[in-house]
Amino acid sequence: MDRKRCEILCVGTELLLGDILNTNAQYLAQGLSKLGLDLYVQTVVGDNEARLENAIHLAMTRADILLFTGGLGPTTDDITKEVAARCFHRELYMDEDALREIQDFYALTRRAMPVSNQKQALMPRGGLLLKNPQGTAPGCMMTSDEGHLAFLMPGPPREMRPMFDNEVAPILARYSNGGLYSKAVRVVSLGESRMAEMLQDLIDAGTNPTLAPYAKDGEAMVRVTARASSKEEAKAILDPVINEVLQRLGRHAYGVDVPNLESVISEKLQQQGLTLSFAEAGTGGLAAQRFLSCELAQSVCGPGLSAMTTGQLACALGLMDALPENTAEACALLSQHACKHFGTTAGLCTLVSGQELACAVTVLGETRQYAARMPARGADYYRTQASQAALDMLRLMLMDREA
Amino acid sequence: MDRKRCEILCVGTELLLGDILNTNAQYLAQGLSKLGLDLYVQTVVGDNEARLENAIHLAMTRADILLFTGGLGPTTDDITKEVAARCFHRELYMDEDALREIQDFYALTRRAMPVSNQKQALMPRGGLLLKNPQGTAPGCMMTSDEGHLAFLMPGPPREMRPMFDNEVAPILARYSNGGLYSKAVRVVSLGESRMAEMLQDLIDAGTNPTLAPYAKDGEAMVRVTARASSKEEAKAILDPVINEVLQRLGRHAYGVDVPNLESVISEKLQQQGLTLSFAEAGTGGLAAQRFLSCELAQSVCGPGLSAMTTGQLACALGLMDALPENTAEACALLSQHACKHFGTTAGLCTLVSGQELACAVTVLGETRQYAARMPARGADYYRTQASQAALDMLRLMLMDREA
Repeated sequence: MDRKRCEILCVGTELLLGDILNTNAQYLAQGLSKLGLDLYVQTVVGDNEARLENAIHLAMTRADILLFTGGLGPTTDDITKEVAARCFHRELYMDEDALREIQDFYALTRRAMPVSNQKQALMPRGGLLLKNPQGTAPGCMMTSDEGHLAFLMPGPPREMRPMFDNEVAPILARYSNGGLYSKAVRVVSLGESRMAEMLQDLIDAGTNPTLAPYAKDGEAMVRVTARASSKEEAKAILDPVINEVLQRLGRHAYGVDVPNLESVISEKLQQQGLTLSFAEAGTGGLAAQRFLSCELAQSVCGPGLSAMTTGQLACALGLMDALPENTAEACALLSQHACKHFGTTAGLCTLVSGQELACAVTVLGETRQYAARMPARGADYYRTQASQAALDMLRLMLMDREA
Repeated sequence: MDRKRCEILCVGTELLLGDILNTNAQYLAQGLSKLGLDLYVQTVVGDNEARLENAIHLAMTRADILLFTGGLGPTTDDITKEVAARCFHRELYMDEDALREIQDFYALTRRAMPVSNQKQALMPRGGLLLKNPQGTAPGCMMTSDEGHLAFLMPGPPREMRPMFDNEVAPILARYSNGGLYSKAVRVVSLGESRMAEMLQDLIDAGTNPTLAPYAKDGEAMVRVTARASSKEEAKAILDPVINEVLQRLGRHAYGVDVPNLESVISEKLQQQGLTLSFAEAGTGGLAAQRFLSCELAQSVCGPGLSAMTTGQLACALGLMDALPENTAEACALLSQHACKHFGTTAGLCTLVSGQELACAVTVLGETRQYAARMPARGADYYRTQASQAALDMLRLMLMDREA
């Protein structure tokens, strides 16, 4: 089979006005990448008939598979289905099953169905309805006589994502060019460029697998990707390179295909039978918050205290003495008191004050501390750096205890 | 002057692989919208010469002003400047000043400048260098003989944003079509569709100003936009409509052109001489965290306690008795104890447990509470809803005290 080229078309004037962030394009791009399908162009156009038609005709000259998001709603602004059907020379008809589902949705929410919603049940002849359990607008697939495939999905990510995963991806899978298999090595306390330097010869030499370095939220990662016809073949290609990468990066690499730093730490805490509490100043409690989405954290995380200043933290922890002027020492004292106050075996303290960062971690009475001045980059950066520094310090202490 | 049409071209294979989210497109779209410039298409292409060239030629047929991000780095992948200069028939030359700045950057960081970085100092003849204080890659502006304008900016948002704001936007301002002036009415505890219903006739009738409803992070907003030749003219168009919108939405509208709910609350707390502490279970401390980016919060926010369960919160607050089984009542008790424990005059408690939400707010001894079951939507949604419910309850209590 020929290689199929894909193209993404996101439709919505709100995207052109910058009112919403186009997360759909990234989600679809990731999905296509996982399926090993080629994507060369993404386009965003507004709710304008002539320009949408033009964009579709262009895409049809460049690609075989068109993925649309947006413009399936009930209002007169929503024109994607009508225009795509015209470009594909497909007639629209009223799909009675789709109409019933929309009516049922309104019945469930005890509201009358606005007449305008009827048009959401229009389907292209010879097409396929794509279910939308999250909303009223079903999607649809249509084909052109020249062999193009189009998938029309709704704009809200909460509706688009399950539709892509459950309805679209299984159909696309048959066009996959052998698969792409990739593993990501996650790296902390090492910049992207320094990491890339340490791996430069592997990056330059890589064709299968390829190595791609990235910077990501105060961390770095390198994605190693193989093209292979089976999982086993992919493993044979990937494993030796991953091992070489891990050896070169040493303790900076905190995991392969792990969700994040906090999940790696939670696992270590659980293995070592430890519990962790938090005292954070000027970070909005970011370190504690990062553990929330981590399932294991339920059993290893105690309370987290967050305040604007270390003075407020000290008061709230019942610390009566004045804190040391040295910020790292103040954090050390606070991490020890967090353990006492909250009855946990480990405690973590972070401080952001202007461009100054300090942190300390206590594990079973042993405390390490750190302070640094950060380059001028803004509040989000400072908070991220502080939580990264503290979490990595904790990770290394837990690793040392394993040794 | 003719109306100039703009187009955004984001260059980078990492965008096509979905490895990074394209926040640049939104940032530029917002910037153009504020300047009152027309944007009809956004395109994303990879680091591929033929496809980039094709995309540029297409954009030149549709638009007058091309805004590029990405592909200005030192590696052989980075081709935007070379390809754009070819499409614009402009020769590149080595700009000695730019080269010196790049060399100075490396000298400052005490590293040798890689030879590959030299190409970042290449500039198009007749073009303009755009400064990049955040990185090594300067941007550039170039013009074509047909009158096109191109702005080439780096891909990292931290570098692109100040370059757009400080270097590009001032040049673009001269092409503004009279300006667009807009005000946003922010709305809470009312869905986007219900809000739109309450404003439907205004939305349908609107040409100048136009009304656009949006849903946003557990809130809704309606943006009212006027096209006018001066601020005064815009005000005369906007004010009557804004007043009508505010009257219809009543207490659901919490502000016009305010940054967010927490800044409105911080102002009320300050006016009333109150301080606020937080006790949050299962939300990662989201309510407290939202106040961090709010300047006023420094003076009105006390500590925030965050834990997985209300039981952990009770322990940490020194509450010895068992909590009521009713979650709203448990929250009420915890919000009262947060005030006592942290010495604040107001306390806010939130709880997310599965799909159950509860919250309570205490202000000077008066407590209100609330509980609800949420539709199945995922953890982020639950946390957002819980913090919204509690913050809105606090806002209404503070409003009642003003009355």
